Amino acid sequence: MPDAVDLIRAKRDGRELADADISWLIEAYTAGEVAEEQMSALLMAIYFRGLGAAELRSLTAAMISSGDRLDLSAVPAPTVDKHSTGGVGDKVSLILAPLVASCGAAVPQLSGRGLGHTGGTLDKLESIPGWRAQLTAAELIEVLTATGCVICAAGPGLAPADRRLYALRDVTGTVESIPLIASSIMSKKIAEGTSALVLDVKVGSGAFMPDAVAARQLAEAMVTLGAEHGVRTAALLTAMDIPLGRAVGNAVEVTEAVATLRGDGPADLVEVTLALATEMLKLAGVDADPAAALADGRAMASYRAMIIAQGGDPDAPLPVAAHTELFSAPESGWLRALDARAVGVAAWRLGAGRARKEDPVSAGAGIICLAKPGDRVQRGQPLLELRADDPARFPRAREALSGAIEIGLQPPQPGPAILARVGA
Amino acid sequence: MPDAVDLIRAKRDGRELADADISWLIEAYTAGEVAEEQMSALLMAIYFRGLGAAELRSLTAAMISSGDRLDLSAVPAPTVDKHSTGGVGDKVSLILAPLVASCGAAVPQLSGRGLGHTGGTLDKLESIPGWRAQLTAAELIEVLTATGCVICAAGPGLAPADRRLYALRDVTGTVESIPLIASSIMSKKIAEGTSALVLDVKVGSGAFMPDAVAARQLAEAMVTLGAEHGVRTAALLTAMDIPLGRAVGNAVEVTEAVATLRGDGPADLVEVTLALATEMLKLAGVDADPAAALADGRAMASYRAMIIAQGGDPDAPLPVAAHTELFSAPESGWLRALDARAVGVAAWRLGAGRARKEDPVSAGAGIICLAKPGDRVQRGQPLLELRADDPARFPRAREALSGAIEIGLQPPQPGPAILARVGA
Repeated sequence: MPDAVDLIRAKRDGRELADADISWLIEAYTAGEVAEEQMSALLMAIYFRGLGAAELRSLTAAMISSGDRLDLSAVPAPTVDKHSTGGVGDKVSLILAPLVASCGAAVPQLSGRGLGHTGGTLDKLESIPGWRAQLTAAELIEVLTATGCVICAAGPGLAPADRRLYALRDVTGTVESIPLIASSIMSKKIAEGTSALVLDVKVGSGAFMPDAVAARQLAEAMVTLGAEHGVRTAALLTAMDIPLGRAVGNAVEVTEAVATLRGDGPADLVEVTLALATEMLKLAGVDADPAAALADGRAMASYRAMIIAQGGDPDAPLPVAAHTELFSAPESGWLRALDARAVGVAAWRLGAGRARKEDPVSAGAGIICLAKPGDRVQRGQPLLELRADDPARFPRAREALSGAIEIGLQPPQPGPAILARVGA
Repeated sequence: MPDAVDLIRAKRDGRELADADISWLIEAYTAGEVAEEQMSALLMAIYFRGLGAAELRSLTAAMISSGDRLDLSAVPAPTVDKHSTGGVGDKVSLILAPLVASCGAAVPQLSGRGLGHTGGTLDKLESIPGWRAQLTAAELIEVLTATGCVICAAGPGLAPADRRLYALRDVTGTVESIPLIASSIMSKKIAEGTSALVLDVKVGSGAFMPDAVAARQLAEAMVTLGAEHGVRTAALLTAMDIPLGRAVGNAVEVTEAVATLRGDGPADLVEVTLALATEMLKLAGVDADPAAALADGRAMASYRAMIIAQGGDPDAPLPVAAHTELFSAPESGWLRALDARAVGVAAWRLGAGRARKEDPVSAGAGIICLAKPGDRVQRGQPLLELRADDPARFPRAREALSGAIEIGLQPPQPGPAILARVGA
């Protein structure tokens, strides 16, 4: 039987762990035979030493094997999912899942809650009165079959080892490791049972992976893992230096997503959503034009059906925060930058995000970007609208925004929204 | 208040931790507010990033502050202690403490038990019938005042944070870190209350720090820490490629130590012991000739007084293992090498050492080196005598010895026993 200390030392010293060693580690950890403090030391050693391709494959396989793998074979359409590494104002899933469904693929999107400065899709949808994130596997397949899409919480049976490892990484400073991020995301997505997967890997200040080189490595690692486990996988690297769209929060993002489904979406959000939809349909083998489905109301119909199937009322008014403050331009000129991370942290401090997993979020809190980089602004003109249930939250949110805005004499050079594609 | 995750990430990313951060970490860990898994992740980050001089000073100070510091001011002679980083056949303390005491200094030697392939001084002395390792602080000072020396276990009140950290490092693959070793040794030795300290830093295959460069860094770090805390400190780097003396085990090492006190010691053991004694007397400000004290029986008298004061009978027969096997020369020639680590591991497997802290050791088990490098040997001539209580232990001990012996046509180049001195 392997010895945990020997394996930690091997990884620490840069030696490669065998497939059997990694399976044993994950099984023994799940069984409580490898202690939390041993696993955290191993995770930190992996942070420094990385994982080879074979080690990464073994770790991901071991995490999938720690639980069930959903069987979606009863779903009568090709399944394809999307995962985003998390950005500010990233409400793409709310539009994309029904859009792709309306084109004829089935989108089984198991999502998470927000932690830190980026929001979670489930938190956003929970601002819709009646909507339920928790579905049984049978309910999930029922909604997916009936409406072509479902967005819900991953059950505790999928990759439970990843769930424990993620919680451990969160308290031990070992989140920001490319192989650990890749295996965590991919073990959950592969266990979910989708046949194809498109990854939206965010790059820029508002992303967890600000650096483009690291983002590409992450994308490549995940695409390889998908292929190794029989899931057709591609990735888009997309820009996350400024918030996506104009709304950052929960209910405010639902409102913007619905506007986009109605044809009134901001250009950057529409561009990223259509690019991801095109990739998903291609991987699913469905020949359809997502732009047409967005324009003619089919995507909206799928959205409404999905919300209703999960208990929500798509026509109910959404919660609105009780207090509003404006953040104004300190000078006149071209708005050159609006830092995504700063806006994300400010929205978080307004109540849109949570500090600990067990904290609630405010449905109404958040930020509306009244101007975006490339706009000409006048001194004193409102740039951001801050919303909170508790006015005591405004000062610390404003602190987060200091330095977030750049106004200059020249307009900014607009950069592309889609930076690169990784995949076969 | 600092946040444990922020501090782990700071260290992970190579940023320096402030004195207040480190004090908080050790206090919060002692109080159970920083979890074991967080501390182990931090220890692994320290393994990779090291500690700056200020961080190392802060960590050592925090570990000392986690408990009591012994007050030896009532002892009527200058206090000086020795600490060895651990070697194979290293019974120096048993001779050195009474030798230095017989010259007029007081030696308060708080020692440990063996773990791994090197033996512990307490384990060796416990093979003497009646001898007690556990003394109260009052008893310690009484024995020290009466006989000039005491060798006993460190009480639980000295540097308790180090005790917990050491146990954690042991199971998380974070033992082999120079700053962590330095702070662990020095926090205990400084808390012990000695005014001066000589470190015997072993270098070579049988040492924990086989590499001379790393051993020198360790010695320098410890000498600096001693000076920073008002303890006059020097270090000798001594060779540990072959066992020191001829006996490796517990009772067999006591027998060899007593022979050395009687004037019949092996040359390498006598040389290292006298070099350390000279350093200790110099730091204690005592002008005396340790070679004379060894030759004329004064050291032996101090030894007998110390053993008796701690309940032991220096004239009682020592335990003898029930079974003996010989390990013979596979060919004729010059014995060129006798690997210290291999002999240490073999003695451990014979029962002289323990795998886990709670295991007992065999008093009689061990190895007698019948030949040492530099001797001419004949094929079939016994080189090692293996002793065990249980004959089932012989095969695995022999396995450890495969490759430990080198016989050649030329005699080996003898190397110096004392490699270097570090200190003011």
